Amino acid sequence: MPYVNIKVTGGTEAPSTEQKAELIKGVTQLLANVLNKNPATTIVTIDEVNQDNWGIGGESVSVLRQRKA
Amino acid sequence: MPYVNIKVTGGTEAPSTEQKAELIKGVTQLLANVLNKNPATTIVTIDEVNQDNWGIGGESVSVLRQRKA
Amino acid sequence: MPYVNIKVTGGTEAPSTEQKAELIKGVTQLLANVLNKNPATTIVTIDEVNQDNWGIGGESVSVLRQRKA
Amino acid sequence: MPYVNIKVTGGTEAPSTEQKAELIKGVTQLLANVLNKNPATTIVTIDEVNQDNWGIGGESVSVLRQRKA
Amino acid sequence: MPYVNIKVTGGTEAPSTEQKAELIKGVTQLLANVLNKNPATTIVTIDEVNQDNWGIGGESVSVLRQRKA
Amino acid sequence: MPYVNIKVTGGTEAPSTEQKAELIKGVTQLLANVLNKNPATTIVTIDEVNQDNWGIGGESVSVLRQRKA
Repeated sequence: MPYVNIKVTGGTEAPSTEQKAELIKGVTQLLANVLNKNPATTIVTIDEVNQDNWGIGGESVSVLRQRKA
Repeated sequence: MPYVNIKVTGGTEAPSTEQKAELIKGVTQLLANVLNKNPATTIVTIDEVNQDNWGIGGESVSVLRQRKA
Repeated sequence: MPYVNIKVTGGTEAPSTEQKAELIKGVTQLLANVLNKNPATTIVTIDEVNQDNWGIGGESVSVLRQRKA
Repeated sequence: MPYVNIKVTGGTEAPSTEQKAELIKGVTQLLANVLNKNPATTIVTIDEVNQDNWGIGGESVSVLRQRKA
Repeated sequence: MPYVNIKVTGGTEAPSTEQKAELIKGVTQLLANVLNKNPATTIVTIDEVNQDNWGIGGESVSVLRQRKA
Repeated sequence: MPYVNIKVTGGTEAPSTEQKAELIKGVTQLLANVLNKNPATTIVTIDEVNQDNWGIGGESVSVLRQRKA
């Protein structure tokens, strides 16, 4: 019955379909292993956040990536 | 003043504009009826989550739908 | 499979156990009626937010309530 | 280490890249000023919500905007 | 830089301090393994939701547990 | 009409009532200044997360604080 929300950067950094499937499988197993939660009712949602819309250190990821490039 | 967030699968399963209007109206009325909350400041947001990004039972909805098809 | 999060003020304004049960039942039915979603996997969580921790109009609800009292 | 999520209407009302940068900078500074939080690990995400998917007063923003137009 | 929120039932079903540490470690490693995300800026928050405040199948978990008892 | 959620560590690091009022005021003004959003319908909620329930770098904040002490 747990609910998990994972937010990662999207756009050019977006996870592939396979990677998203691995995240869903992995976090569902983790909750089953650690807390004995039933996978059948464990819900996971993944948000892919635009790099303009994600900030860290007071700057957007798009600005941070440009500076490093 | 309540805030409600509704997450449903999107893509081919996305709710129509009319259905989203019904959800907004219905949940706002529910909060007014049950808790006497003022509809004027009740905020509802609906997230339509890609079927690759929604997991249940350790698998994505897109994989689940393919298997049933 | 939908996931709904409802945030309301808590403390002296907290909903009763019966009111929370009505919210859970009502929003689950709404999603079944409007979008034909399966109630068995519809998850609802209710957050009761302290009145000091809820702001509207730039002020906390606790300050707003004191002014009106 | 704080985490902040800002939800605003998108579409024709979506904030520009510059405005999003200002929100990220401003809220990170606010947390540093008020709570002495380290900007380096302050994360901010901005969600731009479709006007059909945002409700207030029991109606979607898209319907409210049409009526005023 | 990912942000993960895990919601589980609390009260008598609340995870122990050790279990919470395992969830934090496990999900951080999962994001490093699958997406090569830097653990240093991966944030995880765990919400323990009262059984009256968690609904599934249109009923609260507290009612479901009582029926089974 | 924006909705903002701020998550910070609680317990011994919890913000005071005055600090929470400053956060609410500051973020509401920021949205008015940057995006011309109406403060009257801007909602802010602050979550104070237990240090056992907040992870960064794969460890809980409570463990991190103990090591530094």
